[in-house]
Order: sequence, then structure tokens, then C-alpha cells
Amino acid sequence: MGYVKWSYDTLNHFCGDVFKAFGFSEEEGSIIKDVLLTADLYGIESHGMQRMVRYHKGIEKGTIHPQAKPEVVFETPISAVIDGHNGMGQLISHFAMEKAIEKAKTTGVGIVSVRNSNHFGIAGYYANMACHEGLLGMACTNSEAIMVPTFGRKAMLGSNPIAVAMPADPYPFFFDCSTTVVTRGKLEMYNKMGKPLPDGWALDKNGHASNNAPDVLANIVAKKGGGIMPLGGNEEVSGSHKGYGYGMLCELFSSILSMGVTSDKCCTFPDKTGICHGFMAINPAAFGDPDAIRKHFSEYLEALRESPKADGQDRIYTHGEKEVAAEKDRKENGIPVNDNTMVELADLCSYLKLDFGSYFEGYELPKDSKFFNGNY
Amino acid sequence: MGYVKWSYDTLNHFCGDVFKAFGFSEEEGSIIKDVLLTADLYGIESHGMQRMVRYHKGIEKGTIHPQAKPEVVFETPISAVIDGHNGMGQLISHFAMEKAIEKAKTTGVGIVSVRNSNHFGIAGYYANMACHEGLLGMACTNSEAIMVPTFGRKAMLGSNPIAVAMPADPYPFFFDCSTTVVTRGKLEMYNKMGKPLPDGWALDKNGHASNNAPDVLANIVAKKGGGIMPLGGNEEVSGSHKGYGYGMLCELFSSILSMGVTSDKCCTFPDKTGICHGFMAINPAAFGDPDAIRKHFSEYLEALRESPKADGQDRIYTHGEKEVAAEKDRKENGIPVNDNTMVELADLCSYLKLDFGSYFEGYELPKDSKFFNGNY
Repeated sequence: MGYVKWSYDTLNHFCGDVFKAFGFSEEEGSIIKDVLLTADLYGIESHGMQRMVRYHKGIEKGTIHPQAKPEVVFETPISAVIDGHNGMGQLISHFAMEKAIEKAKTTGVGIVSVRNSNHFGIAGYYANMACHEGLLGMACTNSEAIMVPTFGRKAMLGSNPIAVAMPADPYPFFFDCSTTVVTRGKLEMYNKMGKPLPDGWALDKNGHASNNAPDVLANIVAKKGGGIMPLGGNEEVSGSHKGYGYGMLCELFSSILSMGVTSDKCCTFPDKTGICHGFMAINPAAFGDPDAIRKHFSEYLEALRESPKADGQDRIYTHGEKEVAAEKDRKENGIPVNDNTMVELADLCSYLKLDFGSYFEGYELPKDSKFFNGNY
Repeated sequence: MGYVKWSYDTLNHFCGDVFKAFGFSEEEGSIIKDVLLTADLYGIESHGMQRMVRYHKGIEKGTIHPQAKPEVVFETPISAVIDGHNGMGQLISHFAMEKAIEKAKTTGVGIVSVRNSNHFGIAGYYANMACHEGLLGMACTNSEAIMVPTFGRKAMLGSNPIAVAMPADPYPFFFDCSTTVVTRGKLEMYNKMGKPLPDGWALDKNGHASNNAPDVLANIVAKKGGGIMPLGGNEEVSGSHKGYGYGMLCELFSSILSMGVTSDKCCTFPDKTGICHGFMAINPAAFGDPDAIRKHFSEYLEALRESPKADGQDRIYTHGEKEVAAEKDRKENGIPVNDNTMVELADLCSYLKLDFGSYFEGYELPKDSKFFNGNY
């Protein structure tokens, strides 16, 4: 499969028109496209243009209600519960994290739990919102069940990512990872390449470890059983119960505190996904001098990067460094978008009556183009 | 190596006298022994009687200062920083979590970061303190460096456990795990059994994966390099960067917010370990009706337990179930203490001028007994 690179400006312009055509205000459109394009700039391709089809189909099917506005249903000076009323995940989440930030600036901490939302893009975007304000930011979400609990054979938790961002120099700490060993996107990549899955990733419908990507993916789509292992695999010896536990932590802050839909039931309704999120912002000033804390943390990160490397390795990364490098590269050299995704964008244009060619001049759609349906 | 079982009352009586002899008040002694014996009751043997030698040697060497009192050096209604002044970790941590609980009851949340403490026992004990009050409790600690960051060959983070406890029926959710794939205690177990280490656990001094338990342990003791892999192993394909990230999260709440000693420097001083902790208590009442939240969570836990099992498995655990079962068994049938530990307890009695035989009547010390020094 080929890909083509587009400038940030091209994609930004395109996304702006898309979300306007969906009926979002200019401000709303700006938020949604910033979440998507940040993923692409960071090199998290699965959550940028490639994910547009999910929002398109969600709005078309009626599980995403573009006109819904988030509602604060419970609030204290340090906390809030928000009902997203099945609106666009990015807008609900931006609203929720702004509230957490506001509380953290006033009281030192803000914890916001959200129910009835939709896929919100990368969790790290919202952790970053707090980080940009000098705060420790955390974000998590549940999702359609894909993680099989230790000793199980049915997916009961989502990929349940947890993101953490904290100010530091020369760049912040930025950690954004699923609590499964990998995401479904990785399985799909191996499937497209026709390669067997690495050990320790996936389970077949009987709960046995499997390297068979097409079989595992087909079972996931048909909800026949199996799925992805927690971080730590499917045995206690490799720490399966730990990844499963971090997935539960995510569930606590998203679906439990908000009284929302747990992952085992997410995406089983005709008119909503029920996806839930959790957000936290913590003000370092509630613990002393924020500048001193920032310097202390930066020194530790530097010590980690400078520590001795394993034979054959020339670099130890601190979390967020790869994103900094990817952003620099993609701003200079463009954002790669693969042909499958381009076909999906063409379909989206046709749905919204936008002129695909006017955004992506000179691009020729593959002759045998079919929409890749596995992901929605 | 053999072991012998003692009743809870026998060990409780023994520990009471030990901590009294060290100069702790009765109340202080009660806290310390409750932390230790809870570990033994929960089946976390590495942190019960087996760990007594570490406190003994710490006090003897002067890295634990029994008379030190924790001091609140910074405080807001939702947060505090505590300097432990190198006192007993359990006392400092009990004090810190009580403060977090008090804040959570008043404001909805309490976050307490602690510097200059010592080994505090099981993290889960403190998470449980909050849980017993109907709150969501979290606790973490850094420690002497043992986790090698992804692509490194020198340990730069501790085993950095994160514990979470949350009220539920018929028993609470209780998660307490290191962010390394396993703890050093597991390596020592394999070493004693003369068995090769499982793949994905440990690194030799050059940063290569190693199954050689004696070599890895000798390098750790001599600080020659190598150590234990993060949860997720030493490759990105298995999620190494994720375990490393959770270790960093732990560091943030313990050593960073408190301006304390990061794991890479812990236990490198003659007069202190510098170990840091983080505690959080969150009041579900800050998010709605605590009873409804508890019921909602209990139902999800039940759904997890009842979900289909993998071929060959007859049970899916939710976190904390194994501890409930172990506690029942040990209260009925006694707490196993191995012969090595018994020798260490005899040494402790001799140091404190206590009569070993009066506590452990009829027990015969192994004839070739030598103190196992690897762990301190």
C-alpha cells in the first residue's frame, strides 16, 4: 500500500471544511481538527486522518450526535461529572479537561469523569492541555471491549489508554499508551503485511495465544471471542494481571466514577457508543515551587537519557521525545496519509458534497479502490 | 528450604515486643506490625516477616532513624508534602495517608507526596486505609534502582509499585503491583531453586536479556549494571516503554512532587535511603452517590469474574480475590515462615536481647544456619 505526504496546512484546511459541513461551529471544528492533526504530527497515525472514517460513520449511523452539548451533572470545587449526551468525543473531552484545569488552578486539583461520550482521539492531547498550563495532566478513556482479562477468552475491557503529561525542559514528559500490549491498529498492520503476529499479543476465540492475524481480527469483528492481551501477556509470569489492573484503573476514572457504560457494554447500543473518559489536572504549586519541581524533574529525565545504553542501542528515550522528533519532521516534510485512508476521505467528500480534488490536487485514487471496513 | 507455620497471634506478639525493644511507642509498634502482618496474611511473603531483616539492619546501620517524626513542610486543603526525616517508612506513610484521607473527606481529594522516608512495606496497605473509609485509595513508592529503562543497561528506576483500592462487594478491588515485570524477590526464589529465569525478566550487565539468576543478582548487589525489565520486557514490541512509563508515573507522585531523591540515587547515602512515596485518596461522594458508584463497580467486577474462561482455566480473578483467600487460609491455618527468615528473626532477638525460644517454642534453628545477606 502506498502513501502520499500532505502539508499540515492542506490537511488543516480540509478538516476545517469537513467539520463545518458536518454542522460544527468554527470553534468546534478547530478543536476537533487540532486533536486529529496533533495525532498525525506526533506520528500516531492510527488516530489522525486514518480515524476520520470512524467519525464519518459514527455521525452517519447516529452514534455520534453532532449537535449534542456536554452537560455538567455533578460538581464540586475539585471534581465534576459530565454527561456528553453522545456528542463528539473531542468536544466533550476538551470541555471536560478545561474544567479540570480551571479547578486545578483554583484548588490545586481537578478530576472530571465523563459518561456518554464517543471516541476522543489521542488521550495525550488532553493531558497536554494541562501540561501547556504548567500542570500535571492525566487522561484516560474506556472503549469497545478488546482486552481479554487474564485467564479469559472474551474481551471485557477496552484498549483503555492512560496518558500523562508533565512540564519539563527541554521538552515535557508525554506518555500515552494503551493498557493492552498493543492496539488493534497494530494487528491490522501485521494483517495487511501478511505477517504472523508476535507472541504475547493476541488470543483466539478459545482463549489460546494466537499468531494468526486474520483469524483474530475476524473474531473481533464478529465478536466471537478472543482479542488482545493486557500489557504483560496472558500469563502471570509475564505480568498479565498488571496490564489488566492498569486497564481497571482506567475504567475506574472513566466509567465507574461517572456511572457510565463499562467497556464490556460500550458500542453495543444502536444510538450511542457510551464511551467514558477520565481527566485529571494537578497543580505542582500545590506541592511547592513549580519551577523547582520542573527543574528537579528535568534533571531526572536528563539522567535517564544519559544513562548507559544496552549493547547495540545508542539512545534511551524519555517519553515524548519521539513525538517531538515526529512533529518536527512532519511540519517540515509533510504528513503521510496512506492510500486506503485517501479512499475513505474521498468517500467522506462524496457524503458531504465537498470537492475531493480541490483539496488533494494531483492525487489519483487507486483504480481498485474499496473502502477498508475493518475499523468501523 | 523448609518452613514452619505460626499463628497470627504468635507473630503479632513477637512483633509487638520487637518494635517496643527498638524504642517505638505501643501505637507506633501496632502500625508497623499491622503493615508487616497484613502482607503475610495476604500471601505477599516477601514483605512480611521475611522483610524484618531489612528494618533490623536499617536501624542498626543508621539509615532508619526510629525516633524521627514526619513533618508537614507544605500544605493546602487538597495536598501536602511531608519530610519523613528518615524515620520508619510505615509510620511516615500511615501519617501521610491519614492526612490524605482527612483531606478527601473534607474537600473530596487528598494528594500527599513524601520525601526522606524508608521502605514502607506493601503499597496496598495504605491504599486499603482509604478504601476502609469508603474512598478510592492509591499509593506508590520509589526505591533503590532495579528497573532498567528501555534500551538501557543500568537500573535507574525502582520496582516502583502502584497500588489502588476501591470499595466493592463482596470484597474490594485491591491492586498492588510493581511496575517492573517482577520483583527482585522472584529472582531470588528462582536462584534458590537453581532454576533459569523465565524470558523477559532480567538483563545482564551489558543490557542483554539473561536467564542467569546468580549472575543477574550478583551484578545487582555489586551495582555492576543490569537489573529487572519493566513490565513489558525490554523491547517495544512487548510494551517495554509502557512499564517504564508507569514506573515514571510512580516517580512523579513520590520523588518529583516532593522534591525528594529519585530512584537512581536512592540508597546511595550512608545515613539515609531517601525513599519517597505518593498517596492519594479520592472521595466517590465528589462524583455522586457513593453507594450507587459502589454497586455499579461491584456489578462490573462480577461480570468480569463470570465472563467466559480460556480453555484450561476455571476462574477469572478480579484484583484482591487472591488476598481475600490467602487471609482466610492463614488466619485458620497459620502463616508460613521459612527457615532462612527464622534464622534472621533469631539474629534480631539476639540483637534486641529478646528470648527467641519464648516466642517460637519448639522450633529448632537449622544446624548450618547462616544469615542470608543478599537482601540488605
